[in-house]
Amino acid sequence: MIHDTTPDVDLALFGALGDLALRKLYPALYHLDRDGLLADGARVLGLARQDIEGEDFRKRVREALKKRVKAAVLDSDCLERFIGRLDYLKLDFATVEGYEAIRDWREAAPDERPMTVYLAVPASIYGDICRNLDASGSLDDETRVVVEKPIGYDLESSKEINDAIGSVFPESRIYRIDHYLGKETVQNLIALRFANPLFGNQWNQNQISHVEITVAEQVGIEGRWGYFDKAGQLRDMVQNHLLQLLCLIAMDPPSNLDADAIRDEKVKVLKALKPFSQETIGRDVVRGQYIAGSINGASVPGYLDEEGANTDSRTETFVAMKTEVANWRWAGVPFYLRTGKRMPEKLSQIVIHFRQQPHYIFDPDQRSLASNKLIIRLQPEEGIALQVLTKDGGLDKGMRLRPGPLHLDFNNAFPKSRIPDAYERLLLEVMKGQQYLFVRRDEVEYAWRWADQLIAGWAERDMPPRRYPAGSWGPVASIAMITQDGRSWYEDY
Amino acid sequence: MIHDTTPDVDLALFGALGDLALRKLYPALYHLDRDGLLADGARVLGLARQDIEGEDFRKRVREALKKRVKAAVLDSDCLERFIGRLDYLKLDFATVEGYEAIRDWREAAPDERPMTVYLAVPASIYGDICRNLDASGSLDDETRVVVEKPIGYDLESSKEINDAIGSVFPESRIYRIDHYLGKETVQNLIALRFANPLFGNQWNQNQISHVEITVAEQVGIEGRWGYFDKAGQLRDMVQNHLLQLLCLIAMDPPSNLDADAIRDEKVKVLKALKPFSQETIGRDVVRGQYIAGSINGASVPGYLDEEGANTDSRTETFVAMKTEVANWRWAGVPFYLRTGKRMPEKLSQIVIHFRQQPHYIFDPDQRSLASNKLIIRLQPEEGIALQVLTKDGGLDKGMRLRPGPLHLDFNNAFPKSRIPDAYERLLLEVMKGQQYLFVRRDEVEYAWRWADQLIAGWAERDMPPRRYPAGSWGPVASIAMITQDGRSWYEDY
Repeated sequence: MIHDTTPDVDLALFGALGDLALRKLYPALYHLDRDGLLADGARVLGLARQDIEGEDFRKRVREALKKRVKAAVLDSDCLERFIGRLDYLKLDFATVEGYEAIRDWREAAPDERPMTVYLAVPASIYGDICRNLDASGSLDDETRVVVEKPIGYDLESSKEINDAIGSVFPESRIYRIDHYLGKETVQNLIALRFANPLFGNQWNQNQISHVEITVAEQVGIEGRWGYFDKAGQLRDMVQNHLLQLLCLIAMDPPSNLDADAIRDEKVKVLKALKPFSQETIGRDVVRGQYIAGSINGASVPGYLDEEGANTDSRTETFVAMKTEVANWRWAGVPFYLRTGKRMPEKLSQIVIHFRQQPHYIFDPDQRSLASNKLIIRLQPEEGIALQVLTKDGGLDKGMRLRPGPLHLDFNNAFPKSRIPDAYERLLLEVMKGQQYLFVRRDEVEYAWRWADQLIAGWAERDMPPRRYPAGSWGPVASIAMITQDGRSWYEDY
Repeated sequence: MIHDTTPDVDLALFGALGDLALRKLYPALYHLDRDGLLADGARVLGLARQDIEGEDFRKRVREALKKRVKAAVLDSDCLERFIGRLDYLKLDFATVEGYEAIRDWREAAPDERPMTVYLAVPASIYGDICRNLDASGSLDDETRVVVEKPIGYDLESSKEINDAIGSVFPESRIYRIDHYLGKETVQNLIALRFANPLFGNQWNQNQISHVEITVAEQVGIEGRWGYFDKAGQLRDMVQNHLLQLLCLIAMDPPSNLDADAIRDEKVKVLKALKPFSQETIGRDVVRGQYIAGSINGASVPGYLDEEGANTDSRTETFVAMKTEVANWRWAGVPFYLRTGKRMPEKLSQIVIHFRQQPHYIFDPDQRSLASNKLIIRLQPEEGIALQVLTKDGGLDKGMRLRPGPLHLDFNNAFPKSRIPDAYERLLLEVMKGQQYLFVRRDEVEYAWRWADQLIAGWAERDMPPRRYPAGSWGPVASIAMITQDGRSWYEDY
């Protein structure tokens, strides 16, 4: 499996002039091409509504790459080779007219090859596109489809979307992206847990006291008030990213690395998530909404003062919760989750707290130090650290302890000192036909089932979100939630 | 217990002009003084046979310090303060005449303080010195005595020596040095094992497959042929240093950090060491003697060609063995020990090999990588590393594994970038009256009991040692001993 390039492949990209394509997909494809991971004959067909020529399209992609790709890795030979793979087709996605041009484009390929259809467009038109592709004879029984979140707004709407895609594509050729799964560190979790007996043996309620997952954003809603206010932080971040991280931490070891072996285990975790009762919603879940504050010394407006805001919104921009995976491995181990917008910094990390030993023989005033932590950091930089206690080095210190992190150095692993963006990994896996980093339909649906039940509980209580100033770590209640258990959110690294 | 200096203390140093004193003890005392760890009133009385004046003595110590201490930490104020603590007394150690001067020296102190007597002389005169100190009224019931190895040649002779010391000093005031116990990394083993549940929980035969201890010397016998040929490597290195390391790794957790709690556990290990039978001596023990070879490109003579050599000696300069601690914690876990002179490099390290997980899901050709190792390095540099497997970073590598060491960085622990010499730690502990880093009488005796039985087995077999060229890792049989178990001596770091 080493030095696998992709086979010759065609990529049809719907939403070819959209934000995701320009910001993430072309740069990812360019990097794959530069690293020799795109087959010589690979082609990309951009599809959008705009009435522009192929040359204009290529010019716009070239400009986007010059803006997004670091100068050090942007060499002009490679750039022109990549640009040379691009074609453009103006298309009204909603009607079948014009789709036959996709079939023609495929037939013009020098050889037969699978096509990947990437839907970088709103989920509301996934169904139309799939049906029109099918009706126009553009598909064959190897065509893959890639879709982006959000897949629906709740369980019902996600079922509709998945049914629409599923009426054309079988599950084995549907690739649902959660870009967190493409992060190097997240994949490293699989190696850490299952290749290292030192961790694998202790990955359970006997040895782990609790787990923290923090996904803090520094940005606010970035002009997407209309969209975000209908969703809220639970749908926008928890239902997908945080639950995916939780699944990778909590899942039982799969028998092998096949996509379904892994996803079967993730689904088991989602099914075992403890539902909230009215009592536990009040006690173990904190909803927040930011008010005006300041970040890095600059004033920022409150959520209700953002452009386009409706001043009586009760949508949450922050959620913290204490949840539990009710199974043999995790019974009694709290999973503390929190995510919010307008936090003091951009920070995504998982902290596994190992239990203290039952007996303690060092200085009593150092007792609180005495546990091990595994810290998995996704943002701002990716990395893994293990907190181990050693003897403090000073001769005058006797047998004093010192917590010292052992850092896993990712720069050694990447000789070019560049950790690939999640989309590079994910596009490569799609083109190779490997699904283990993509979300299966039942995962989406069990995640919605859990989220829906929590949202319904909120609706029943009808409580406004708690306020927190932009630039703070969320409502005070989210700190109290963990400190009343004698713990605290881990903030050092 | 932080920033404990020693109390006012007097140190009477027998063998004040010997190699150990000049090379190790004055530099260690100087460093303690410079770091503010010697009380203002602390005094040192040098005792030797040479007929010199105090001024000459101080001059020789000053010269020794200038030669041994790094210029960066040798400041003249501090040097003169230290030199000012020194007095000298010419003494014939064997007869009581003259010892009363020690009593007089103590009485001349500005206050009452405990005395430490350091015997940096051959063990054959420990008894005389102790009796003469006692007879001359130089001792009180707080006086401590420090003795150096070798304490005897076998169980019988060690008992005689210990009886002689013990007739004057109670065990609670006898400090037997094994300088390996003063090494920072060795003490760190206690913190690693007992402050870190991640390691502590797995420290047994369920999780550890085997343990390696290597103490390789690059030097030969350095002009000590006469001494060494009577001893051999088993007595010179295994009976003390290697068994001490083995005890610290293998001991059950002590209930507290008291000296006797720790030493009780070490003695339990020595008592549980499996004795060798005639069969296992042949199979699990390899004796070697070096022949001419080369080290770092320079030719070096064989053991039998060294100065002073007797050409038919069968003394071993190398021992490797596979042994076992027959108790609940370690049954079935081999401890592979090896030590030799004229090895390719100076290397002392302990490697704890954790068992592989029962099920393996990564690339089959990487299976042999898949275990964790804890590497505790004493020489040439001190340090601790944990080998953890992570995902290989290349995008083209799929889910390939990569063994990456996590290094514990001792330089951070010592801001001055200087790891104290073992003698600094040991002298400080003696002056504080803390015995946990010193060897108790029963430890010495159980270690001899085990060594004597092995030496007797060798005598019975009457086999010559296997030859190995200077500059090699010992006889081929010592490699075969471990490879036939499907393992190998760990040599990377």
